[in-house]
Amino acid sequence: MRPHEVSIADIARIAGVSHTTVSRALRESPLISSETRARIQRLASEMGYTPNAIAQSLHTKQTSTIGLVVTSIADPFFGDVVKGVEEVARASGFSVLLSASYNNPEETLDIIETFHRRRVDGILVASSRISEDYGRRLHHTHIPTVLINSEVEGQANLLHWISVDDCQGAQLAVNHLLQLGHRAIGYLGCHSRPASNLQRQQGYLNALRAAGIEPSPSWVVIPPGAEASQEEDLSAGQHALSPLLEAGVTAIFCYNDMTAIGMLTSCHARGIAVPQDLSIIGFDDITIASCVTPPLTTIHQPRVELGRLATQVMLDLLQSRPGANHTLSPTLVLRTSTAPLSK
Amino acid sequence: MRPHEVSIADIARIAGVSHTTVSRALRESPLISSETRARIQRLASEMGYTPNAIAQSLHTKQTSTIGLVVTSIADPFFGDVVKGVEEVARASGFSVLLSASYNNPEETLDIIETFHRRRVDGILVASSRISEDYGRRLHHTHIPTVLINSEVEGQANLLHWISVDDCQGAQLAVNHLLQLGHRAIGYLGCHSRPASNLQRQQGYLNALRAAGIEPSPSWVVIPPGAEASQEEDLSAGQHALSPLLEAGVTAIFCYNDMTAIGMLTSCHARGIAVPQDLSIIGFDDITIASCVTPPLTTIHQPRVELGRLATQVMLDLLQSRPGANHTLSPTLVLRTSTAPLSK
Repeated sequence: MRPHEVSIADIARIAGVSHTTVSRALRESPLISSETRARIQRLASEMGYTPNAIAQSLHTKQTSTIGLVVTSIADPFFGDVVKGVEEVARASGFSVLLSASYNNPEETLDIIETFHRRRVDGILVASSRISEDYGRRLHHTHIPTVLINSEVEGQANLLHWISVDDCQGAQLAVNHLLQLGHRAIGYLGCHSRPASNLQRQQGYLNALRAAGIEPSPSWVVIPPGAEASQEEDLSAGQHALSPLLEAGVTAIFCYNDMTAIGMLTSCHARGIAVPQDLSIIGFDDITIASCVTPPLTTIHQPRVELGRLATQVMLDLLQSRPGANHTLSPTLVLRTSTAPLSK
Repeated sequence: MRPHEVSIADIARIAGVSHTTVSRALRESPLISSETRARIQRLASEMGYTPNAIAQSLHTKQTSTIGLVVTSIADPFFGDVVKGVEEVARASGFSVLLSASYNNPEETLDIIETFHRRRVDGILVASSRISEDYGRRLHHTHIPTVLINSEVEGQANLLHWISVDDCQGAQLAVNHLLQLGHRAIGYLGCHSRPASNLQRQQGYLNALRAAGIEPSPSWVVIPPGAEASQEEDLSAGQHALSPLLEAGVTAIFCYNDMTAIGMLTSCHARGIAVPQDLSIIGFDDITIASCVTPPLTTIHQPRVELGRLATQVMLDLLQSRPGANHTLSPTLVLRTSTAPLSK
């Protein structure tokens, strides 16, 4: 279908020189005169010749390609991570192959298999659910892999990771609510991201227990769900409001901003004033968190930075420099969805 | 750095057969016995052999790769488009190379050049600013290209496009406001996306003039800006509120949902009740539009569908089927940020 592509042989024929001479001219080789080099380069450009990176990669054994798998492309959290990855990759001459796992561990393995066939130089995984199989498979593939906010059990010596400290973030959130005088503090968790949910729930428990509070089991609600999508998060937040209010909480720490926003919309619908009647705090600090009513107090995750740093570690690994693991610290962002407990 | 990769020669040596036999076994050739085939396939799997798609693509002259350039990866509009592209591409065995232009026409050309070197089979452009140069360059590259919500002057015979009818969407929005009794209707435009801004402004003018209203020049505000980012949109909406109120409008049609949300936050800050004091309508119907206060009346763009359809047209072109251009119709989504004009 595509018309004949201009080859080195075509340029050689028209220039009346050998294949080797054209090849040397295009590689800026000093073995030919600068006049010949300039003439052939000009001719190649006029003929519309573009070097074939695919052919080159068979020689160099490098494709200058990074494979990136994310849970969901449309999610504002991953959008920023992808942005950071692409920025650093592109500045170093790498291209990014992007694929979405939809939170399915089988799909993740499938995508990684495709990346392997395409001989990517490295793989970045920003998808919370990776099976242990992956660690085992790495023994065969030997492709440098950096995980973003994900952890895999076993074989950790072949994997690197960059993550935000979920447990610390949760403690920041709950300590903020404690300082406002709240004691009956709920946790709205997330079923579809079990690893980070566990960490955030642990941080919640740590903070309460450090304050001498033993939370009632009814203060923790983890709605079902498997998609890890924005829509699922909104719906989880909307449905968790009633059971948490019935449990008697005066403040709620939500797994992420989208669940917190879902909860806010339910509060509006039921005439519950936030923060006067109920304090709500999120996690992530997505762009929209500052635009809802009231603007959401939340825990900031440096998302673009996560993507940038993971890519930098990958580039280090590809240049045989040691790759370090990094745990980034989240920060509290004060807005107006939290307030002192009214007596 | 990477350990030795298992090759067909390695398998042949260990199996004690020829290179040709291994190659035939892996290609399921009937020229060797089914026992040998099974034995070699099992051995290849145990040794961790994965076929090299790069080497194959030099034979087939196809890389099964699509290059996708978007204005911004973190933007919720493009997130959904990318999702639709990846979904259809992957189902057909194609991988997606993703890059962001940050609304810079030079970057766009640069990215496309990289895609060409990587011998992508086709290019999708979801970036509103493409220079005419691109049409000219296509004469050299001959790479099938499909534009998503973008248009290029000239050389249109080499390009295909999928877009949502911006002018029609704007008319839907303004007619809705007219039906609510508003006559002094403002337009908050967008400087950084000139093509779609022009279409939406035209639809705005058409609708008003069809109703016998000649808009005052002060009803149209187009804030400066070059980034086409979410942050820029929010800020544009926040700053456009004052001049539009001073111009005496009772309703505002905003270029997109993010500018409308920026305007909503300014209304909250100034104690202006929406929709009682001012009706606001957006464009796009991003997920968050239903979660702000009040939920935003807007024009729905089928974003995931745009990505899917553009990819389908691309796959048709790659199989030498004729590729059609498509203009999709936007629809009005009624929520509560618009209300009848109070007397």
